[in-house]
Amino acid sequence: MTQHLRLKKNADKRLKAGHLWLYSNEIDNDQSPLKAFEPGAQAIVEAAGGKALGVAYINPHSLICGRVVSRDPNVRLDRSLLVHRFKQALALRESLFDKPFYRLVYGEGDLLPGLVIDRFGDVVVVQINTLGMEKVRDQIIDALNKVIEPSVIVFKGNTTGRQLESMAPEIEVVQGTLPERVLLEENSTQFEARVIDGQKTGWFYDHRINRARLNEMVEGRRVLDVFSYTGGWGIQAATHGAREVMCVDASASALEQVKSNAALNGVEDKVSTLMGDAFDVLSDLKAEGEKFDVVVLDPPAFIKKRKDIANGERAYGRLNREAMRLLGRDGILVSASCSMHLADDRHIDLVRGAARHQDRNAQIVHQGHQGPDHPIHPAIPETAYLKALGVRVFRD
Amino acid sequence: MTQHLRLKKNADKRLKAGHLWLYSNEIDNDQSPLKAFEPGAQAIVEAAGGKALGVAYINPHSLICGRVVSRDPNVRLDRSLLVHRFKQALALRESLFDKPFYRLVYGEGDLLPGLVIDRFGDVVVVQINTLGMEKVRDQIIDALNKVIEPSVIVFKGNTTGRQLESMAPEIEVVQGTLPERVLLEENSTQFEARVIDGQKTGWFYDHRINRARLNEMVEGRRVLDVFSYTGGWGIQAATHGAREVMCVDASASALEQVKSNAALNGVEDKVSTLMGDAFDVLSDLKAEGEKFDVVVLDPPAFIKKRKDIANGERAYGRLNREAMRLLGRDGILVSASCSMHLADDRHIDLVRGAARHQDRNAQIVHQGHQGPDHPIHPAIPETAYLKALGVRVFRD
Repeated sequence: MTQHLRLKKNADKRLKAGHLWLYSNEIDNDQSPLKAFEPGAQAIVEAAGGKALGVAYINPHSLICGRVVSRDPNVRLDRSLLVHRFKQALALRESLFDKPFYRLVYGEGDLLPGLVIDRFGDVVVVQINTLGMEKVRDQIIDALNKVIEPSVIVFKGNTTGRQLESMAPEIEVVQGTLPERVLLEENSTQFEARVIDGQKTGWFYDHRINRARLNEMVEGRRVLDVFSYTGGWGIQAATHGAREVMCVDASASALEQVKSNAALNGVEDKVSTLMGDAFDVLSDLKAEGEKFDVVVLDPPAFIKKRKDIANGERAYGRLNREAMRLLGRDGILVSASCSMHLADDRHIDLVRGAARHQDRNAQIVHQGHQGPDHPIHPAIPETAYLKALGVRVFRD
Repeated sequence: MTQHLRLKKNADKRLKAGHLWLYSNEIDNDQSPLKAFEPGAQAIVEAAGGKALGVAYINPHSLICGRVVSRDPNVRLDRSLLVHRFKQALALRESLFDKPFYRLVYGEGDLLPGLVIDRFGDVVVVQINTLGMEKVRDQIIDALNKVIEPSVIVFKGNTTGRQLESMAPEIEVVQGTLPERVLLEENSTQFEARVIDGQKTGWFYDHRINRARLNEMVEGRRVLDVFSYTGGWGIQAATHGAREVMCVDASASALEQVKSNAALNGVEDKVSTLMGDAFDVLSDLKAEGEKFDVVVLDPPAFIKKRKDIANGERAYGRLNREAMRLLGRDGILVSASCSMHLADDRHIDLVRGAARHQDRNAQIVHQGHQGPDHPIHPAIPETAYLKALGVRVFRD
């Protein structure tokens, strides 16, 4: 029989507003001691008055001690619900994209807290971030086979979220045989997803639209792609007419993949790589008098927690200043951030400050966000994390 | 000789940060009495210590009593500077668009405070919003002829900005003969700009990108375009494969233009019109049991001033709720706002509330802003005003 989890008085407000999370300090421990719940177990969530609000899975050891999987107290997170949610998620993607290369499931944004699934054609990579989702591991496989029949299913998890739930990292091919190369297409450009040895699921689909917007502006231009990883921005710029592209990353293996991805698209002659710390490389390029028409900054999150905001903003500011120094008289800076804690207006202000610092003018011509296969849950600000400003920088 | 305008102590901070406006309470009236300046005259702006900060044009009778036209105190707003700025503005647009249909000059965003110019091929429509810009009216014509050689130049001004500067409305064809129909193209769709009897310059280019994003999602769908004006959203949906489009507006002449624009694109069989107050029409359609796959809400600004925020948000909320009621099981709501005072997070929260109100789920798949021919000045939040959320609304 399903256990009941009772909330304290007024603690139902966030849930009623549409949010999916329960915090451990909101639980009425007299009525329903949190420690009585097995980690990952499902429970019917009740308001202080006893009204059932929905079903959540519980982790008594986590600050976010529960995540709602349905507002219907009769529903459970099981194969049937997973099939339903996967179909809902697939319908959105199929209405948006011609080809099967996208994030199929984006956690809370697709009403599946703790679950991320990226699709590379017949290969899907599943990232489980919570114990509650881990409990339905087999049902996830079943539901995927029901809804999209992938040849290969890989479970890969190495996120901070897993650490918070005391889950070890994992990489396991649970169905089929992983082909030597897992390919994907984004904005008419081919890439290899580095499923096993790459970051996260092996590819970042979230900048798809921002890259498409930049692609419209690179014809004949010299492009610097900083924090290039495997070349998402740079190689697309090359396939869309950029004259020359330089990809900078601290990882030798990422840059090997840049070369391989460039060759995949026949643009290897235009794409070069430079290994090193981004700040060092920007400084060296400046010293050498190099100039670019376009500089892309897509750094890792500098602000992981609220307490890092001041330091993180300083780092973003410095990075944007250094990058602007490499732009010619009339250039484009793409200033991206995947830090949820960097507010939009602060981000704009960093760009403003960087331009003023060099007595240049800045025009923001694109305010971009994560692509539509990363839908934002309007009650959960944490689901909106990605920013990309397209900035024209010019001297007066 | 050019007069000097002295700022109070610390009043130079905003200018140094890149802003272009001076407020009347920031002027050192002992050193430089504001009333000594002729309305529209140019002046060298000085910090309290006497350092020249740039050149501004002055209106002693306006709350914004000065707008900076250059940071170089030796420059004046004249034909030469206008030619320079127009060339800078044109270069951006030509790098973005294949065809000459765009906002060529977006006021402060293009470092030309008080001036807006929309281009419809060989026809340009100039909107002057300040006395300072009015003073260089003839130079604007000269500079336009130098940079883009338009056949027709129309001066049209009927904005709130002009009222604040005590300027009467104007419509004047100052060069060439206005053709019977002024045509433009946006997202591969033809429209007529209603230069003389339409709103503002006769067309709103600002939603170009947001419309393009919606166009990707309308195949085979039934679309309701509320506050349609002359059909910008609806007719583009029709040319991009929508099954059926209904345009709602309170203006009979706007709806006549919808029909004419539909015919221009050969989609008149799919496009119908409905005249009336938007709230009434939404309510009637609900009573009649009508359902749509897509509803577009692009209302006029409900929040014109800060004091209207509470009332305006209520109106936006009600509108979004009414619109959502017309969506089928799985539909798309485009929720736009041109109110600068509606904050992004408040806008998202309105959509959240509307969905919760009907116990539906909402996913934000697009967070859109004004197009790149309306560049945002990073020091001037007022230059960023447009929002469009693409929201998928579905039942559980």
